[in-house]
Amino acid sequence: MKTVPFTFELAGPDFVPSTYDNHIQRRLSAMKGQYLDQAAYAAMLAEGDPLLYEVYELQRPTVAGELLHGISIVHPGLVGDEYNMTKGHFHEVLETGEIYYCLKGRGFMVMETPEGETAVEPLFPGRVLYVLPRWAHRSVNASLDEDLVTFFVYPGNAGHDYGTIEKQGFRKLVVAQDGEPAIVDNPRWGQP
Amino acid sequence: MKTVPFTFELAGPDFVPSTYDNHIQRRLSAMKGQYLDQAAYAAMLAEGDPLLYEVYELQRPTVAGELLHGISIVHPGLVGDEYNMTKGHFHEVLETGEIYYCLKGRGFMVMETPEGETAVEPLFPGRVLYVLPRWAHRSVNASLDEDLVTFFVYPGNAGHDYGTIEKQGFRKLVVAQDGEPAIVDNPRWGQP
Repeated sequence: MKTVPFTFELAGPDFVPSTYDNHIQRRLSAMKGQYLDQAAYAAMLAEGDPLLYEVYELQRPTVAGELLHGISIVHPGLVGDEYNMTKGHFHEVLETGEIYYCLKGRGFMVMETPEGETAVEPLFPGRVLYVLPRWAHRSVNASLDEDLVTFFVYPGNAGHDYGTIEKQGFRKLVVAQDGEPAIVDNPRWGQP
Repeated sequence: MKTVPFTFELAGPDFVPSTYDNHIQRRLSAMKGQYLDQAAYAAMLAEGDPLLYEVYELQRPTVAGELLHGISIVHPGLVGDEYNMTKGHFHEVLETGEIYYCLKGRGFMVMETPEGETAVEPLFPGRVLYVLPRWAHRSVNASLDEDLVTFFVYPGNAGHDYGTIEKQGFRKLVVAQDGEPAIVDNPRWGQP
């Protein structure tokens, strides 16, 4: 791991970092149980296992004081009426925040606290979003022809709790209604 | 202070955040003892007190887990042969890093550790710089006609130690030589 300050470049059109340490690819099969329309999900999966999103990470020690950072790219598409999205997670250390800076595309950050507060914030190029400590967060690409690209920064000790969202989902969904994104309640929230 | 996730926009040409909590303005008089050519500094100050740089901050609790963030704008200019620059600082909690994302301009981040390691990294739009924990850092605008604008993120508990740099300076300077930026040793380093 690097022991001196380092740099990399983020350039359009794709914004893949000029150097990185990890490249994570999440396919449809990784999203079992997350989409509302489970029949559409199963039918899509029977046809193949498309790539939904990618994350490029710079490696740092996972301790407080360090800042983990990288690029998230959610590709466009729908599963049923629901836009492509990330798994979403709480931080394992709940009292840690995260910064997102949107570089490309149109989308939403869907967020909620363990106590049930919800927030859904639009993302577009040049917009900074501060996800407060305690808020679970999921990126949703609300375009059907362009990637949603964000640069993210979070504390080195934050960790990821994916399990809570895998079990209960998010309280809010972003779906296509008459070709436009709409934020709706998740009728399956909290179901196993 | 905000209790739900919040957003703001960074748009050219100036990249002042669409909302912010603090606006810091640093003038020449705040840089006493920092520039190599102290006669040039004194002569400039006798003529006025120009604005050298500005910082726009979003307020968050100064605790670990939060991320302090904002925009730094270093205006173009010279003091003697030395380019306009920020005061520069160590973090009070030395084991905390900082992320910079350059939005506009041309410049350098001048860095060093308490043990005497040095690094000077070019900044230009689209470039991300990770300042490792332990590294003091100063932004230098190496253009004479354009602002240097960076977006920064650092841990909420980091704090600022300006005093060490005020006393000893940085080991490296960025000066104009034949109209081009050059990195040179600071002959006054460590002098009171």
